[in-house]
Amino acid sequence: MAIMTTSSLTFQPVLERIADEIGRTPGRGRPADYIPALAARDPRSFGMAVAELDGTVYGVGEWREPFSTQSVTKVFTLALDLAREGDALWEHVGREPSGNPFNSLVQLEYEHGIPRNPFINAGALVVTDRLLTRTGDAAGELLTFLRAESGNPELSFDQEVAASETAYGDRNAALAHFMASYGNIDNPVPLLLDQYFRQCSITASCADLALATSFLARHGIRADGTRLLTRSQAKQVNAVMLTCGTYDAAGDFAYRVGLPGKSGVGGGIIAVVPGRCTLCVWSPGLDERGNSVAGVAALDRFTTLTGLSVF
Amino acid sequence: MAIMTTSSLTFQPVLERIADEIGRTPGRGRPADYIPALAARDPRSFGMAVAELDGTVYGVGEWREPFSTQSVTKVFTLALDLAREGDALWEHVGREPSGNPFNSLVQLEYEHGIPRNPFINAGALVVTDRLLTRTGDAAGELLTFLRAESGNPELSFDQEVAASETAYGDRNAALAHFMASYGNIDNPVPLLLDQYFRQCSITASCADLALATSFLARHGIRADGTRLLTRSQAKQVNAVMLTCGTYDAAGDFAYRVGLPGKSGVGGGIIAVVPGRCTLCVWSPGLDERGNSVAGVAALDRFTTLTGLSVF
Amino acid sequence: MAIMTTSSLTFQPVLERIADEIGRTPGRGRPADYIPALAARDPRSFGMAVAELDGTVYGVGEWREPFSTQSVTKVFTLALDLAREGDALWEHVGREPSGNPFNSLVQLEYEHGIPRNPFINAGALVVTDRLLTRTGDAAGELLTFLRAESGNPELSFDQEVAASETAYGDRNAALAHFMASYGNIDNPVPLLLDQYFRQCSITASCADLALATSFLARHGIRADGTRLLTRSQAKQVNAVMLTCGTYDAAGDFAYRVGLPGKSGVGGGIIAVVPGRCTLCVWSPGLDERGNSVAGVAALDRFTTLTGLSVF
Amino acid sequence: MAIMTTSSLTFQPVLERIADEIGRTPGRGRPADYIPALAARDPRSFGMAVAELDGTVYGVGEWREPFSTQSVTKVFTLALDLAREGDALWEHVGREPSGNPFNSLVQLEYEHGIPRNPFINAGALVVTDRLLTRTGDAAGELLTFLRAESGNPELSFDQEVAASETAYGDRNAALAHFMASYGNIDNPVPLLLDQYFRQCSITASCADLALATSFLARHGIRADGTRLLTRSQAKQVNAVMLTCGTYDAAGDFAYRVGLPGKSGVGGGIIAVVPGRCTLCVWSPGLDERGNSVAGVAALDRFTTLTGLSVF
Repeated sequence: MAIMTTSSLTFQPVLERIADEIGRTPGRGRPADYIPALAARDPRSFGMAVAELDGTVYGVGEWREPFSTQSVTKVFTLALDLAREGDALWEHVGREPSGNPFNSLVQLEYEHGIPRNPFINAGALVVTDRLLTRTGDAAGELLTFLRAESGNPELSFDQEVAASETAYGDRNAALAHFMASYGNIDNPVPLLLDQYFRQCSITASCADLALATSFLARHGIRADGTRLLTRSQAKQVNAVMLTCGTYDAAGDFAYRVGLPGKSGVGGGIIAVVPGRCTLCVWSPGLDERGNSVAGVAALDRFTTLTGLSVF
Repeated sequence: MAIMTTSSLTFQPVLERIADEIGRTPGRGRPADYIPALAARDPRSFGMAVAELDGTVYGVGEWREPFSTQSVTKVFTLALDLAREGDALWEHVGREPSGNPFNSLVQLEYEHGIPRNPFINAGALVVTDRLLTRTGDAAGELLTFLRAESGNPELSFDQEVAASETAYGDRNAALAHFMASYGNIDNPVPLLLDQYFRQCSITASCADLALATSFLARHGIRADGTRLLTRSQAKQVNAVMLTCGTYDAAGDFAYRVGLPGKSGVGGGIIAVVPGRCTLCVWSPGLDERGNSVAGVAALDRFTTLTGLSVF
Repeated sequence: MAIMTTSSLTFQPVLERIADEIGRTPGRGRPADYIPALAARDPRSFGMAVAELDGTVYGVGEWREPFSTQSVTKVFTLALDLAREGDALWEHVGREPSGNPFNSLVQLEYEHGIPRNPFINAGALVVTDRLLTRTGDAAGELLTFLRAESGNPELSFDQEVAASETAYGDRNAALAHFMASYGNIDNPVPLLLDQYFRQCSITASCADLALATSFLARHGIRADGTRLLTRSQAKQVNAVMLTCGTYDAAGDFAYRVGLPGKSGVGGGIIAVVPGRCTLCVWSPGLDERGNSVAGVAALDRFTTLTGLSVF
Repeated sequence: MAIMTTSSLTFQPVLERIADEIGRTPGRGRPADYIPALAARDPRSFGMAVAELDGTVYGVGEWREPFSTQSVTKVFTLALDLAREGDALWEHVGREPSGNPFNSLVQLEYEHGIPRNPFINAGALVVTDRLLTRTGDAAGELLTFLRAESGNPELSFDQEVAASETAYGDRNAALAHFMASYGNIDNPVPLLLDQYFRQCSITASCADLALATSFLARHGIRADGTRLLTRSQAKQVNAVMLTCGTYDAAGDFAYRVGLPGKSGVGGGIIAVVPGRCTLCVWSPGLDERGNSVAGVAALDRFTTLTGLSVF
């Protein structure tokens, strides 16, 4: 992996222009406040990285600052499980937008314990449960993968964040027990929750995550040249990101940004330009739908300035 | 307590006529099958008892046969907690009909963790949680009360039923965690569930339950002459039974029977004629809404034959 | 019919005490404001009447002042149709509480065009549609009935109110077309709406309505001694009033008042003490669920002071 | 416009292979049966066309057979209104997937009369209403546009289809009145419905519609070289098609096909490969979500065989 920061290269001027515009924009939303570690971040923080297919990374702002990945990791867990069990996964989780706030139990009940998609909490619990059954340690599997793809062996769980999530974990416990009542959870709920919260707690930087996402721009090929997903599966994961990756704002994100993307309440968003590059942007201030305000704005500017939308 | 079975007394001929009619009616619904102890009961079983205010009891069929009380006990837990904390209870649980199947999470989410009424599972969990906080042993408190009112010291928990409920308890665990996420549960969820399932497991006969319900026909006065509820509170419990006591069929039950009543999936139903008498009927076959088929039919006949509806 | 106001009779002192208490209570809610005729009423107006089975009427305050009956008339339309078609009506409208705000379309869609009960707008449209098919003039039939029972030949439609309702009638037009799409409306929607809005527009006083409701306390017998409903049907209408008569507050009304009752957004509420008497109270200020604030409070006091609850 | 069918050209062999595969596949779903003109079509019919940016069209099967366009026209009405009023449109209709069946009123009520997106019926009614206000004849404007872009002056309304839609139009009348009750419809409902049903009734072939859609692959440029939409607006319409274009199956369509697309109950589907080409496929047999079974399968094969997905 070659980290390049020379400003003469392709994406660097675009990133700097975006950072400059974002820096002059007041109003950044509010950091998630349900756990102390997230609430403590400065909403004015901003970093952005672009990774080309060959591992070249461009960055601006706090692009090497580690932050809490949270739901961004749901993409990688999905890919890891899909690589193992293939289409059988889709009998346990759907791939339709939720049309409701991200914690909603309504549709889960209406659809008999099958979550709408892998990126709402209920769906991510199912995917983690299945990867746990297949590996014995879903969180460990995820961490190993992220370290390998990012080339950063220091990535790790944040024990304090994981403990905080557990302390406020009644909603996810309810989701897991609810799906278990429909027979759609295999492992004991406390074990599953431990695995789930540890995944959410992983800390990584924009550079790390842009690189870790590259396999989706390379149609399934990992950093070491081996194949994780078939070309068709990589396309499918991108499609699910586009239609379901930003909570209840997927339509708006597609409309403004026009790229497959996945956000987390830590303020990070990853995005994919298939066949071309990947992006990760981070800024802790969230809008009312849980997406980074400056993050979405930066990606919007990126696709407008470069024309690199999928549409 | 004087148990009277001489057929010359008031209610005996009515009960015998009803039993005769029910006995000639084919089609009795199906016993609840989610736990073995309920599934094993014969759907053709039938018993019915009427208790007058002075403790005189009339009965027919298997009126002295113990059965699993299940949700019927929710009435007594409500009364015991209401006696202790009064109107403050209503800040934690509503008193409106649910308008949805009895396990629904939809309204619970919509109403921010405050269950619609004390007789849906979520509401009963809240009431148990509050009585547990106030007594240290809600299930024990309930059993003591039922023994005293029925005059039957042999009433007890059915450990096998309680264990079965726990084994299939994911739905109730989901409800409890969900309400805990809104701050509406005080005790640890596993402890609460243990108390809740033990209450549901109590075994009693029609005679026992008709007597135990009498305080609601006596406007709040217990068997020993002491007052459990104020006259106004007794009226309120009766009102909640009428509007919410039979799952999603409260309107239909009021229409057909016209009495405050509470059913359980064990096939029992208690009913109150305020100022006059109480009834308990039992037959394990349920309709699709969870109420005893023969039980509702028998109460329908009783109010038609005697004119003892509240309307 | 003998109108009695001598204060020595039974109910007069109770009514005067209630009026006195209500008069000293600040905060009366707000009149309905969606049409001018309702918005113009003084929220401090208050009247209350009690009619005994023999037609004796007691009253206090503005008990002879005509007001807009609105949804109160749904009870009479139901009775008139039920008298004609009997139980077949219940294939087209349910009798369960709605569990949702009174204009909700959600359950109507979920339940395939069969409204939950005859007192939500959708259900009342169905009942009017059926009475219209059977009589050719549902509104005229209703007016004739109300004049006969109240003994007041001057009762009439308020053309201005009917015209206002039509002007703001999009919501009811939506309901009617929606049910028509399920085949549950027989007549052309504009004709049905005209009939429906005319019924709502009838103006009557507390004295008129208490008398007109008496057939429900007399178990189905009209003022002239003829039978409108069977004893069983009268009981059924009372049961539907108790479980569904006050919009989304039926449980609370049963809990506080403990009588079958039906409210309207004009501020009127009728109530029935089966076998004993009927009541009508009027005060235009509404709570957020559409029921008269002073009206509910007055009925609450009445049942507390007299002990005349059904529970 | 040059219609080319020489099999040596790029897309022709792919289309023929697809047609061959589809022809050997049993099970084609069922035509829409709510109006006679749709029910009468043979579910085994199949046609497919690809239009390159320069107007070259390739086709296979019944690609020149006219069929009922139905909801496919919603894309063009959206573009025509967006061209006129710009972003102000989005105050009256959202751009999020519906997450519910295509006629659902639930979310419409929850979101106060603002439909989720322009492609559910409620949203299309709003867009037609707005274009009607701006042009005086939305249906005529649409027909003129389709004739110009397809180069086919014979495109026209099917009066029989429009009359049938009107006869079964209660659901759409309900939607329109419901939104009018929130102030989100400007024109009289009967006039709006007439315009709406005429748009749905337009008959066109795969060749016509592939050509008419080309402006979305040309980033907003019409067949005559003039600009209808800005580049950004064209991207936005494509994004809305991808997330909302196939009723409740948008996630699945994105997953399988990976292209912006819009289906109609006449069995047609249009799709866009931005910057490259457009497609239209037609086969009347529908799946349970209202999309052409053979149509989705053919597009799935097309993107798999050519690699022309946006992901």
